[in-house]
Amino acid sequence: MAAQGWQAVLVPSSDPHLSEYLPERWQGRQWLSGFTGSAGTLVVATQQAALFADSRYWEQGASELQGSGIDLVKMEGAPAAAYAKWLQALPGDAPRVLATDGAVLGLAQTQALRTAIEAQGWQLTTAADPLAAIWPERPSLPTPPVFAHLPPHAATSRQDKLHGVRQRMQALGASHHWVATLDDLAWLLNLRGADVDYNPVFLGHALVGLSDVQLFVSPGKVPAALSQELASQGVVVRAYDEAMPALRQLPAGSCLLIDPKRITWGLREAVPEGVKVVEALNPSTLAKACKTDAEAAFIREAMARDGAAMCAFYAWLEQALGRTAISELTIDHRLTAERQKQADYVSLSFPTIAGFNANGALPHYRATPQAHAQISTPTGLTAEGLLLIDSGAQYLGGTTDITRVWPIGTPSAAQKRDFTLVLKGTIGLSRTRFPKGTLAPMLDAIARAPMWAHGMDFGHGTGHGVGYFLNVHEGPQSISKAVPDAHMAMLPGMVTSIEPGLYRPGQWGIRIENLVLNVKVPPTVADAAPGTPEHGDYLGFETLSLCPIDTRCIELGLMSEEDLAWLNAYHAEVRRRFTPLVSGDALAWLTARTQPVAR
Amino acid sequence: MAAQGWQAVLVPSSDPHLSEYLPERWQGRQWLSGFTGSAGTLVVATQQAALFADSRYWEQGASELQGSGIDLVKMEGAPAAAYAKWLQALPGDAPRVLATDGAVLGLAQTQALRTAIEAQGWQLTTAADPLAAIWPERPSLPTPPVFAHLPPHAATSRQDKLHGVRQRMQALGASHHWVATLDDLAWLLNLRGADVDYNPVFLGHALVGLSDVQLFVSPGKVPAALSQELASQGVVVRAYDEAMPALRQLPAGSCLLIDPKRITWGLREAVPEGVKVVEALNPSTLAKACKTDAEAAFIREAMARDGAAMCAFYAWLEQALGRTAISELTIDHRLTAERQKQADYVSLSFPTIAGFNANGALPHYRATPQAHAQISTPTGLTAEGLLLIDSGAQYLGGTTDITRVWPIGTPSAAQKRDFTLVLKGTIGLSRTRFPKGTLAPMLDAIARAPMWAHGMDFGHGTGHGVGYFLNVHEGPQSISKAVPDAHMAMLPGMVTSIEPGLYRPGQWGIRIENLVLNVKVPPTVADAAPGTPEHGDYLGFETLSLCPIDTRCIELGLMSEEDLAWLNAYHAEVRRRFTPLVSGDALAWLTARTQPVAR
Repeated sequence: MAAQGWQAVLVPSSDPHLSEYLPERWQGRQWLSGFTGSAGTLVVATQQAALFADSRYWEQGASELQGSGIDLVKMEGAPAAAYAKWLQALPGDAPRVLATDGAVLGLAQTQALRTAIEAQGWQLTTAADPLAAIWPERPSLPTPPVFAHLPPHAATSRQDKLHGVRQRMQALGASHHWVATLDDLAWLLNLRGADVDYNPVFLGHALVGLSDVQLFVSPGKVPAALSQELASQGVVVRAYDEAMPALRQLPAGSCLLIDPKRITWGLREAVPEGVKVVEALNPSTLAKACKTDAEAAFIREAMARDGAAMCAFYAWLEQALGRTAISELTIDHRLTAERQKQADYVSLSFPTIAGFNANGALPHYRATPQAHAQISTPTGLTAEGLLLIDSGAQYLGGTTDITRVWPIGTPSAAQKRDFTLVLKGTIGLSRTRFPKGTLAPMLDAIARAPMWAHGMDFGHGTGHGVGYFLNVHEGPQSISKAVPDAHMAMLPGMVTSIEPGLYRPGQWGIRIENLVLNVKVPPTVADAAPGTPEHGDYLGFETLSLCPIDTRCIELGLMSEEDLAWLNAYHAEVRRRFTPLVSGDALAWLTARTQPVAR
Repeated sequence: MAAQGWQAVLVPSSDPHLSEYLPERWQGRQWLSGFTGSAGTLVVATQQAALFADSRYWEQGASELQGSGIDLVKMEGAPAAAYAKWLQALPGDAPRVLATDGAVLGLAQTQALRTAIEAQGWQLTTAADPLAAIWPERPSLPTPPVFAHLPPHAATSRQDKLHGVRQRMQALGASHHWVATLDDLAWLLNLRGADVDYNPVFLGHALVGLSDVQLFVSPGKVPAALSQELASQGVVVRAYDEAMPALRQLPAGSCLLIDPKRITWGLREAVPEGVKVVEALNPSTLAKACKTDAEAAFIREAMARDGAAMCAFYAWLEQALGRTAISELTIDHRLTAERQKQADYVSLSFPTIAGFNANGALPHYRATPQAHAQISTPTGLTAEGLLLIDSGAQYLGGTTDITRVWPIGTPSAAQKRDFTLVLKGTIGLSRTRFPKGTLAPMLDAIARAPMWAHGMDFGHGTGHGVGYFLNVHEGPQSISKAVPDAHMAMLPGMVTSIEPGLYRPGQWGIRIENLVLNVKVPPTVADAAPGTPEHGDYLGFETLSLCPIDTRCIELGLMSEEDLAWLNAYHAEVRRRFTPLVSGDALAWLTARTQPVAR
């Protein structure tokens, strides 16, 4: 820092593709600070250092940073404002320089950061990677091969997808389009990889022209046969390192389409003068969010397989409780093993969260061999309480994500009340119908209202978009307190989670999550449509996830008739779908757990 | 235009104070085009002219512009984009100039307009008023006197309000603050006027310093005694015309607080170099939105008076139907006469909307002597159907706004279903509890959900903020599809309308509206608060408006137990409050119309 003339360095949790899960090469923040959370930013000054984290990580940050000399800054608002405030309080005189790697920081974030710190007399330099000179054993790029996502699961051909993107480019007057985000890249080219845990993506960029595509990936990752097939379709494979030079050499007079939320500052800076830039949502982002009918059919199959695995697991769990040693780690191993038996299984879609009692109150909890709770021994239960299991998998025909809460012993009245309020949130939103184009964040309050009525709320979003054999968190839609924009309009074919929760620190956590598909619904009022401009297409949610919701945790007096009708219809559907697939103990379990309930 | 070198002129519906209701002097768009709608922008080019209006005014615009040579442009998105698109299609070569009066156009709107048209090769000039040279008989400034809003109704003193605003100025580092919006000005100085119909405001600006205030109003408007009182409190009255020069003469080194949404482009341009500008919400805007306990008590009194007037009116209406000649105009006259009898009545708060059948389907309908519907003659009903009445008044202790729908004859099954769905929206939101600070737009879907469930929606917002003996539409909160910002956080003391509706063009319209007060509610779960960071203060709505909701229009099978419980409790409260105040026919009517209902 002294040699470069920097007064501070910012090390974000980010990579050149703005990924949620980072390849080890870009886990420099963790390497420098020791903080292992999946989000958080390190700022190092000459005499001090601070780790900035949001409320999900305050407990973990305080524990992991102990004795490191790094302060934990508990962030509550905009990150850029928090960094600026901390920098402003440092001793020293303007002008001062903050260095960060523009190659991994998002365009919009960098603009916000620069504005915030310039107001405090700091300058931002983004040209160099501060980690380059100081991390001798930095991991290299991941090497797993790229593979094709094949028909029938890849239900739309590469050519058709490229054609759609090019139509949008032409409508925007663009001759070129840069794709830096890995889910967009994998979807667009019907390719998949294993460079990042849980997300079946590979590191790369694409420069899409109107008749050709240049795909930049590390040499050797694309098998020769696949490379030839791609070339025959106008997709030329080039080295990962050639991406930035290729961008710098775009001919003058080109018009480049980029998505400011899906590209780094470094890439934007590399666009040469004389190239016109058009900013818009990546065409692939909206296209992949709206699943086709063929994809929806495969997703329903994947949900049935995933649900069958869970039925087998829960049937085992219930008979094993109090007779077998079971810890949170056992849960993960047994449930994963059941999923691995399913056809077209590829991997988990995120690390299983199995949290017993107080651990369930940590939304991002993960049991480790060093720290986990025991639930049962061969001679009895370790404790009574609630077990929260949030899990999911990647199948060739879809991505799953489901949360259930199971009683261990007899739930208390307070636990039943909390469970029922969360369930009312899940059901209330699941049966909501809404106009096509409604902005997803506007639906958030419907899931929260039953908890709000009792003076309670939860600190995370109600729902996130989900990919198709792709990332378990994909936009653009988000049912949350996010500031809505036009890209968040709900459209037929979108898959989203509905997952309200309630968390009592030190006691228990509850979350009930299903994935749902936006489907067109017919008007229920016969005369609604004619002559009334507001009365257009309406959407409803088809619940995709299939697994019983425990009814022993329900306080029936809190359920409305409509709540009970929804729940009983859901359980009837689960029973109908799985009865042909299971037998013996699992069938008995399924039958018991899907019995209708009434007040 | 030719002499000035302008290729087009934009005449907005706006004044130097960004008022909703315009003094005649600034109704140039209406004078030029003949279009009388309360919103809409005229753009005149050398060979063409167009009136840009949103969907509320398409019918009216088409009718009023017929034969004028002015095209109607039906706007659906951002206005700036619509103007730019229209300009771009005109024949001619760049560079071209669009002129508009920066003295009446909002800062934020002007910035958006400039960005949009510059992208099409147009330049914006804002220095001159295009109407100045062409409107010989332009109305002069209104002359009604300014008067003091006195205690006890003015429950917070002028000095205390100024002290609060100055505290906020100091927190933001500002030495000066410009107030251009008339509701802010009236509230801050406990002054009122009658320069604009329905809104008890007066034209003026204030330059608030840390120890003095300069108030700019037309000479002669402030009576001598009031002027002396103001002077003794550090408020110096100066001429309206001196406002802009005073701003231009702000000393270098000053720091001026302005609200970019509550100031014109012209004022912003007048700030001299060397003056630092801080942009933030006007401190008075948030302060006046949160009514004090003393104000809330007066508002409840005003609501009781307003409700008593309505009870008298409706009791008369029901016995007169079929026996007296009654038109929509009669409704307005009779209802206004009942309000005028009430203590502390000042004026209506907006033009009464009395719409029978198809007229009720026009949310901004106003009956005129030339065009109105007849409801009853001395020998019978003119037709059966629904009568929508949206009305309100200004009292010294509060502003009212209420909508009821009354059956004329026997409502049809379809009318009852629509009425019930709207009522479920009003009730559903009225009984919602939510965390303090929830952004108002996030509550919008709760009122719409019952209609959405049947494939129906309405095209206006669910609710608007309401002033205290001030404007009937006041921000910052808005329960609507507006993009939420932090200023829209719901806080104790805010008064908002809840007014979902359903409109069947050519048939009938339904809207059921109450004003509600944000009040803190105790947690209903005893153990909700401790240890859980999300579980803070909760708010609920106290329904302020007091008038029966017709139960003969309800399809009881659509009402939930909770809906019925709310309605019966509301009617019991209305009966309890009014029984001591009314007698004879009105008492019999009140008793009949507040009977509990059950499925």
